[in-house]
Amino acid sequence: MTLVKILEILAILVGAFSGFIEARSKKMDVVGIFTVAFITAFGGGTLRDILLDKRPLFWVTHQEYAILIFLLALVAVPAIRTLRRIVSAKLLVTADALGLGLFSIVGVSEALSAGMPLFIASMMGVITGIFGGVLRDIVCNEIPMVLRDGKPYAICSFAGCWMYLLMQQAGVPADFSLWSSALAITVFRLLTWAKDIRLE
Amino acid sequence: MTLVKILEILAILVGAFSGFIEARSKKMDVVGIFTVAFITAFGGGTLRDILLDKRPLFWVTHQEYAILIFLLALVAVPAIRTLRRIVSAKLLVTADALGLGLFSIVGVSEALSAGMPLFIASMMGVITGIFGGVLRDIVCNEIPMVLRDGKPYAICSFAGCWMYLLMQQAGVPADFSLWSSALAITVFRLLTWAKDIRLE
Amino acid sequence: MTLVKILEILAILVGAFSGFIEARSKKMDVVGIFTVAFITAFGGGTLRDILLDKRPLFWVTHQEYAILIFLLALVAVPAIRTLRRIVSAKLLVTADALGLGLFSIVGVSEALSAGMPLFIASMMGVITGIFGGVLRDIVCNEIPMVLRDGKPYAICSFAGCWMYLLMQQAGVPADFSLWSSALAITVFRLLTWAKDIRLE
Repeated sequence: MTLVKILEILAILVGAFSGFIEARSKKMDVVGIFTVAFITAFGGGTLRDILLDKRPLFWVTHQEYAILIFLLALVAVPAIRTLRRIVSAKLLVTADALGLGLFSIVGVSEALSAGMPLFIASMMGVITGIFGGVLRDIVCNEIPMVLRDGKPYAICSFAGCWMYLLMQQAGVPADFSLWSSALAITVFRLLTWAKDIRLE
Repeated sequence: MTLVKILEILAILVGAFSGFIEARSKKMDVVGIFTVAFITAFGGGTLRDILLDKRPLFWVTHQEYAILIFLLALVAVPAIRTLRRIVSAKLLVTADALGLGLFSIVGVSEALSAGMPLFIASMMGVITGIFGGVLRDIVCNEIPMVLRDGKPYAICSFAGCWMYLLMQQAGVPADFSLWSSALAITVFRLLTWAKDIRLE
Repeated sequence: MTLVKILEILAILVGAFSGFIEARSKKMDVVGIFTVAFITAFGGGTLRDILLDKRPLFWVTHQEYAILIFLLALVAVPAIRTLRRIVSAKLLVTADALGLGLFSIVGVSEALSAGMPLFIASMMGVITGIFGGVLRDIVCNEIPMVLRDGKPYAICSFAGCWMYLLMQQAGVPADFSLWSSALAITVFRLLTWAKDIRLE
């Protein structure tokens, strides 16, 4: 199994988790919660595959992904209820930041290996990174996180995607550039959120 | 004409009708109303066809569907104005419940005949069933019905899709399983709505 | 370069500009502003290409479009801040009306040359014309302009698309019918907006 696949599975789990948290706070029923988690986890990658015209979609050939999220929904819902009391909004922002980093880098890497030019690949990374969360927020009738708090968001993904692209051009080993740039996006986003840094 | 095609046409008519009602209450102009009806009627099936990569889309090869809805828009708008005075919100919930049942079962059946595995087919059914209504509500700036009233919604579609899939596996005649599971979804949704049943 | 291509580039520029204005008023960071501009400029055409199954997408083969919008974002943001003080909401409505006209006619013309039947082509025009703006408004958490002010909107696009289709059938030179019907949509929309004309 390649590192990209592992990162994708991690991204799906984190995306589903942030879907659970937000859907739960809207008092949706268990299938509603699952549907929101499913949309958040697979939305970005599905858009990427549609834009690149890759079929069958990755979650069609791997139905175990969808079943896994369904089983997680049954377990996670009571768990989140307990967790929320302790950590409040921080949990959602952290899960969302992890998802932003992982989805962006998987997106840019898939776009690059599909032969997209560099700038387009970076945009595909940003779109894949933010789209699942935007869908989650729109379906849950929230202002998308990309503009909710007025702090850097899309720019973290954009910077990380270019960090990845430049490392690839410079001949850095693929595994290292994948991990490190995904991590960089997450850390950058969490730092600007915690320190209340604003770009204006 | 197969039963699936008939159910699809019924679903389109019901979907368009729920679009008329909601767009009308937003005081949109007649083409705006038509556009919302069009999106509600064809949104779920279009997403299903894009996910399954089926082209040309069903409403491209059958332009009579779109023309029919356009003609209905001219007739239905004054009719709804009168009807609404009598039945209020009930009409929208009923039309939406009928659409949920019909679209879900058409979706799961098309996904199955496109060779999708069972669990994916059930998810396609749920997505096709709820997507048109979600689009309608998002475009009309309403909270999607899937979470508006806190009552079972997606789970009705999910249960009905599995009822259909199990009947198919058990060798029940296709026509009977199509009709009965679409009906089951609609009745299930309307019952939980009327009796104020909540899953928590 | 054909006239359709020129109109498309104009539409992209105008669409991006209306995205800048709205994202700016939401205090998004520079990449957020760029992303909204990107979605507004390419959303309608991307949906059209997906519905027509045309790949690669036009903004993938022309990465200079995306780069142009990125550079414009850097320049336009301070410019808009100054402009807004003078012209307020009028600027957004004007940019949106220009985009409506240009995108609609490019959409109907591409659908026609892809062999779509007339009525479907007119619907593709309307969808391409309004979709970018609807996406822009949804991502920015605004009520879509198509229903924001209760004045004719979709119907302007619809009328202009049929004006184009009828001119084509009547053998009017393509260039003239392209320009004039795009202009007609914009003028029609701005007139009804300025004169406060309502269809009911």
